[in-house]
Amino acid sequence: MQNFDFHNPTRIAFGQGRIADLATLVPANARVLILVGGASAEKTGTLAEVRQALGARSHATFSGIEPNPHYETCLRAVEQVRAHGADFLLAVGGGSVIDAAKFIAAAALYTEGDPWTLVEQRGRTIERALPFGSVLTLPATGSEMNSGSVITHHGQGFKRAFSSPHCYPQFSVLDPTKTYTLPLKQLANGVVDAFVHTTEQYLTYPVGGGVQDRFAEGLLMELLEVGPRIVAAPEQPDYTDRANMVWAATWAINGMIGSGVPQDWATHMIGHELTALYGIDHGRTLALVLPSLLHERRVPKRAKLLQYATRVWGLGEAAGDEEARITAAIERTRAFFESLGVPTRLSAYGLGAEAVDAVVANLEAHGMTALGEHRDLDAAAARRILTAAL
Amino acid sequence: MQNFDFHNPTRIAFGQGRIADLATLVPANARVLILVGGASAEKTGTLAEVRQALGARSHATFSGIEPNPHYETCLRAVEQVRAHGADFLLAVGGGSVIDAAKFIAAAALYTEGDPWTLVEQRGRTIERALPFGSVLTLPATGSEMNSGSVITHHGQGFKRAFSSPHCYPQFSVLDPTKTYTLPLKQLANGVVDAFVHTTEQYLTYPVGGGVQDRFAEGLLMELLEVGPRIVAAPEQPDYTDRANMVWAATWAINGMIGSGVPQDWATHMIGHELTALYGIDHGRTLALVLPSLLHERRVPKRAKLLQYATRVWGLGEAAGDEEARITAAIERTRAFFESLGVPTRLSAYGLGAEAVDAVVANLEAHGMTALGEHRDLDAAAARRILTAAL
Repeated sequence: MQNFDFHNPTRIAFGQGRIADLATLVPANARVLILVGGASAEKTGTLAEVRQALGARSHATFSGIEPNPHYETCLRAVEQVRAHGADFLLAVGGGSVIDAAKFIAAAALYTEGDPWTLVEQRGRTIERALPFGSVLTLPATGSEMNSGSVITHHGQGFKRAFSSPHCYPQFSVLDPTKTYTLPLKQLANGVVDAFVHTTEQYLTYPVGGGVQDRFAEGLLMELLEVGPRIVAAPEQPDYTDRANMVWAATWAINGMIGSGVPQDWATHMIGHELTALYGIDHGRTLALVLPSLLHERRVPKRAKLLQYATRVWGLGEAAGDEEARITAAIERTRAFFESLGVPTRLSAYGLGAEAVDAVVANLEAHGMTALGEHRDLDAAAARRILTAAL
Repeated sequence: MQNFDFHNPTRIAFGQGRIADLATLVPANARVLILVGGASAEKTGTLAEVRQALGARSHATFSGIEPNPHYETCLRAVEQVRAHGADFLLAVGGGSVIDAAKFIAAAALYTEGDPWTLVEQRGRTIERALPFGSVLTLPATGSEMNSGSVITHHGQGFKRAFSSPHCYPQFSVLDPTKTYTLPLKQLANGVVDAFVHTTEQYLTYPVGGGVQDRFAEGLLMELLEVGPRIVAAPEQPDYTDRANMVWAATWAINGMIGSGVPQDWATHMIGHELTALYGIDHGRTLALVLPSLLHERRVPKRAKLLQYATRVWGLGEAAGDEEARITAAIERTRAFFESLGVPTRLSAYGLGAEAVDAVVANLEAHGMTALGEHRDLDAAAARRILTAAL
């Protein structure tokens, strides 16, 4: 196990009806700016619940934070923070809204120049941020319990990730019933996103992170169990399944399973380019890349792929020779994504060889040519991965 | 899954050599009182490392905190806090020293009367505490990453547990090499303690805490894997095994696996009386009680015992009928403890029926007659459990 620091100060208020707890979670004299995405938080009544819980606190609402939140949108929110004199942000939505809140919280207190530098420097120069909390409505990204954020500079056409210890939510309200109104596609994407967050920190090479591995395997098994049931009946939600999906997505990327172990993230980096070029939902890009990436990387990932085959898929030594078990585990992963209605082939989106060229060109243009846990996944490997995913 | 709050603000500095990080973890202008148990922290050189990392900070040392720390000893430490003008405590040791630090931190700022009331009220009346950190040398109790503590009132002859959100360590340094000098018995006890902390929160009844169950199962499987290797070669320590033992013991009782699910703790309550009456080490009392308790409670715990048999011990449907699988899982648990050299029978300590009478009398005297996740484990059930453990 590698040396590591673990510190996650976010308070979680979990369960049905917990939005009412905003009455005590938000400081009594706070001036609140509520951040939302589209119209759904209003339409579903969640925003009304939030406003009721805030009671007499001064609050305003900034809406219009898009998926893959834009830097330009966040700057408009910063203007509203200042106009309203807000000293507390409350993100109501999914990962995009919470990611945006992290940047807005830092940018609102940054007066030394162009706030994009906070992102460009990957958060290292963030020295302070407004306190903020979240009400999660879409389980997927885990942003509700970590300090990371991805912001898209729409003007310049790229996404950048940053993180800062100043950007943990003070609290997050996780009410599984808030997922009941989500469309099938967002549920399926969320399951895939949480699954691949886990594999990015698990399917690398062994360093003796036994506890982290056990937790990662537990999250994968739980998602394999609840994911198909959730997707099979999106309009007859089961509270327990939704609760476990929410809690699994949070733990997939709150720091625990990635502490003291190598991390990959190549699937994410390649996927980001697919989103940027073709507007494919983030979670869906991961399903396109992961199976082919695991085949491509079966040598450096061999020991962990065997462990994955054995412990997660029950493909022990009786299931065949090692190569066969690795192949079976990867193909079962692909079949799992497909069973959720999430394609694993570029052709499902009408994309062909020209897309491979375009994604590889973008990876090169963005300096993304030394990816993976060994920093050796180059443009040629990315091309093979994408070609295998046609 | 039941509604719950989860909040654990303790920072973990994990790995070999991390004691040097006290140089930045402890506030620069702190006046530090170091708390230690016996002579081992001095003898092994750990205390010298700690003092070197503290550099120019004013520091004093209070030593003599015993296992099952005494209230009376803690009060003497409080006097030294005041005499030294200490504003930061640093516990160097195992769970007893860290538990003591939690009480000393609260009592040092309590001037309204008898500080025992802080314990008596189970921590609910604690409104402030000195900040403190820990350097863990003995993995077992998990006190390094939670807000709970058990203090023994030596004068009155009983143990009481308390917890308070003011009593989380600000940080804990977990250096697995600090376990290298531990004697076999303490290592074995630590594995059993972590194991039973996990079962107390896992082997109850199902409420759909899928993620919590998966994590609990992961901890149990990890302890089953590393425990025997650690105990087989206490003087040829393997870093990876020790690291996983340390990290598993921490997560066994840092709040995660117990959030949103029922908890039992009857094994602990019965075990406490065995410690109080016969001085048997805490971890060893748990091994005496748990196997018999699981047999006694096989009806209310049936569903979780089957899950335990299947997932932790691999005793699936092919392994026999349900009763046989439950019995096998319990007996394998017993055999695991015995394989660590930790007895599961009172006779191993020369105790007979008179001990059953004495423990049951103590449970009754201490109001411990409605134990377990259903509060229905009464004195008669405790008697059956202890009798079965003769």
